[in-house]
Amino acid sequence: MNPELIDGLTVKNDSKIVFLIMDGLGGIPVPGKQGTELETARTPNFDRLASSSVCGLLDPVGPGITPGSGPAHFALFGYDPVKNNIGRGLLEAAGIDYPMTDNDLLIRINFATIDSGGIVADRRAGRIDNETNRRICRKLQDGFRKRQDGIEIFFEPVKEHRALLVLRGEGLEEEIRETDPQKTGLKPFDPDALAPEAEKTSRLLNKIISKARGILKDEEKANMLLLRGYSRYRKYPSLQKRFGLNAFAIAAYPMYRGIARLLGMTIAPPVDSIRDEFEMLRKNFSQYDFFFVHLKPTDSRGEDGDFDAKVKVIEEIDSMVPDLTALGPDVLVVTGDHSTPSALASHSWHPVPVLLHAATCRPDKVQRFGEADCLTGGIGRMPMVYLMGLALAHAKRLEKFGA
Amino acid sequence: MNPELIDGLTVKNDSKIVFLIMDGLGGIPVPGKQGTELETARTPNFDRLASSSVCGLLDPVGPGITPGSGPAHFALFGYDPVKNNIGRGLLEAAGIDYPMTDNDLLIRINFATIDSGGIVADRRAGRIDNETNRRICRKLQDGFRKRQDGIEIFFEPVKEHRALLVLRGEGLEEEIRETDPQKTGLKPFDPDALAPEAEKTSRLLNKIISKARGILKDEEKANMLLLRGYSRYRKYPSLQKRFGLNAFAIAAYPMYRGIARLLGMTIAPPVDSIRDEFEMLRKNFSQYDFFFVHLKPTDSRGEDGDFDAKVKVIEEIDSMVPDLTALGPDVLVVTGDHSTPSALASHSWHPVPVLLHAATCRPDKVQRFGEADCLTGGIGRMPMVYLMGLALAHAKRLEKFGA
Repeated sequence: MNPELIDGLTVKNDSKIVFLIMDGLGGIPVPGKQGTELETARTPNFDRLASSSVCGLLDPVGPGITPGSGPAHFALFGYDPVKNNIGRGLLEAAGIDYPMTDNDLLIRINFATIDSGGIVADRRAGRIDNETNRRICRKLQDGFRKRQDGIEIFFEPVKEHRALLVLRGEGLEEEIRETDPQKTGLKPFDPDALAPEAEKTSRLLNKIISKARGILKDEEKANMLLLRGYSRYRKYPSLQKRFGLNAFAIAAYPMYRGIARLLGMTIAPPVDSIRDEFEMLRKNFSQYDFFFVHLKPTDSRGEDGDFDAKVKVIEEIDSMVPDLTALGPDVLVVTGDHSTPSALASHSWHPVPVLLHAATCRPDKVQRFGEADCLTGGIGRMPMVYLMGLALAHAKRLEKFGA
Repeated sequence: MNPELIDGLTVKNDSKIVFLIMDGLGGIPVPGKQGTELETARTPNFDRLASSSVCGLLDPVGPGITPGSGPAHFALFGYDPVKNNIGRGLLEAAGIDYPMTDNDLLIRINFATIDSGGIVADRRAGRIDNETNRRICRKLQDGFRKRQDGIEIFFEPVKEHRALLVLRGEGLEEEIRETDPQKTGLKPFDPDALAPEAEKTSRLLNKIISKARGILKDEEKANMLLLRGYSRYRKYPSLQKRFGLNAFAIAAYPMYRGIARLLGMTIAPPVDSIRDEFEMLRKNFSQYDFFFVHLKPTDSRGEDGDFDAKVKVIEEIDSMVPDLTALGPDVLVVTGDHSTPSALASHSWHPVPVLLHAATCRPDKVQRFGEADCLTGGIGRMPMVYLMGLALAHAKRLEKFGA
């Protein structure tokens, strides 16, 4: 089924839908453990929810495909993750609320340290602080005040070693080789054209890198820039336009706020803790009808390879669930955007457990919120892109299809 | 998900993947038996594997579709079985390593016996021996030394009653009615054009059949030829090209070697027994990174309608599994290409049980390798074409999709 079939069926009502997204929720066991992180965690509140919900396992993109955060979140919100695959440059730009134009090519910069031979010694320039990042971006901007080959050039700090390079003008293309060699001990790659029409962009980037290297030559740590995630600006139909949803996003990390912003959600001011995110939800609950609550620590502990810490974060989140259910959302969806098993210390292809709680659920036999149990649930194994339609249906926001 | 999405994500590493394919593995019960052939068989080794694997049921093409061996194997190797559907002529040609050209129309011949009234009395000419087959093909070739209507004509023996007819030239089309009436007591059908552009090919085939019948008129058994599986030559991207896999195929039957050859695998010399196939795997294990081990007897016993014999073959294969696991493949997939229930004595549409064993598996609750148990497994019910991506993911041979 085309995931956009639901667009023509949406109706408005007073229902409220909450998507509680634990980033990287899905896992696998490590030696000595009988189950995944979620299965090992003590989660009485999620389990109670699960026993009166419909559960399942979601494939963010498809069997065997490990999704980046972009595709995974597009799928969560009902946007085809392959058709809408976008580069990290656009996500970063959206994350800092950069005023993009139709003519922008957006590129993620990682400041890096190279040695005297030009070899990458640190791909993150020792994770320089935000102040240094801002100073370096100002210095680069000073050096690029004039247009180069008719193209305007902007440097914007993001966080730590990360920044944004914006090229603005005609004829810019995104089919360019990433220059980050992905490991130390190698020279940065050249920004080669990967398609004939990208030759002009490639030549321009070569000049920019060369000049930037000169400007940064006296920096102790950030003496080089690595480029990735080239992406042209794109405009997406908003959740308001597609589904009539007045959406509110609560996320601590810029990239997730960025994705939400691309889809037209109102963005909550950043907060620091899981507790603060739940509090932000409570305070704004009366004003919107769709809530995206993004919790990052599950993914971070998975990426750290720390099984027990991921278990602990899940238990912490579980303990706050009563505050959420007390708000009485009509539809509560609890899931992840993808799996991040601590055994792999990275995103993975394993499907993600989901529970959907609503008065209109047909109960299944799942009594516990965990991967193996969810497999037997009423949602079954399903591409994630259909989740939004299911949530809208349970909120009675979808009309009948056909006569 | 487009099954070709994985092509752009593959990376190389030292992992080894084994596909152990029991042809026609899936079954259904017969009266007096509680389960399928696989469920009836004593398979302690497969069961032990299953309990630490992820299991599922695969649909070779789709619900209700009974696949031929060609589509079933294309799906196994991650090639869309509908888009890549090819005739048996091409498979037979590949199976005998026939030097095909871009201008070839390849046709499978079954030598048959017709009575004096032209009625088919034996569709396999009493399964004439290979020597007779070769003699008859030489005799036919002698009669077709000259081009006919500008087309070159070649007869190549395959095995028993099976041979290959190659038409080489311009304007040949494959939309021709098969002449094998599929049962005795009928006259062969005419090779009618099924599309206007195939008229020329149809006229040519009518002449060839008529002339061949004259040449064979004094043969005791093989006095007629039946034509099926018309197929133009096609070139496929190899497993090396698509997935970076250096693949090795072990198969006793020509057609399966042919499919493997079309996909660029290195073909092991033919061996006679299941035991020899496992030994061939062991001897070549260090030299390749993907292994297709095709075991035919499960299908043959199913086609014979012999439930107990199929059970016995499965048990025999199970007993050799420790030799395979001792090699330590990173990913071991055990499945069939399709179902051949002995109750039906033919290929069927029933989905096929699969187990995928790897260190990166998320365990499910399946403790036994059988159809009903696999249905509750973590792979769930899935189109077979996605299996290769799942195997590559578990071998850590797929990069993340998107940022």
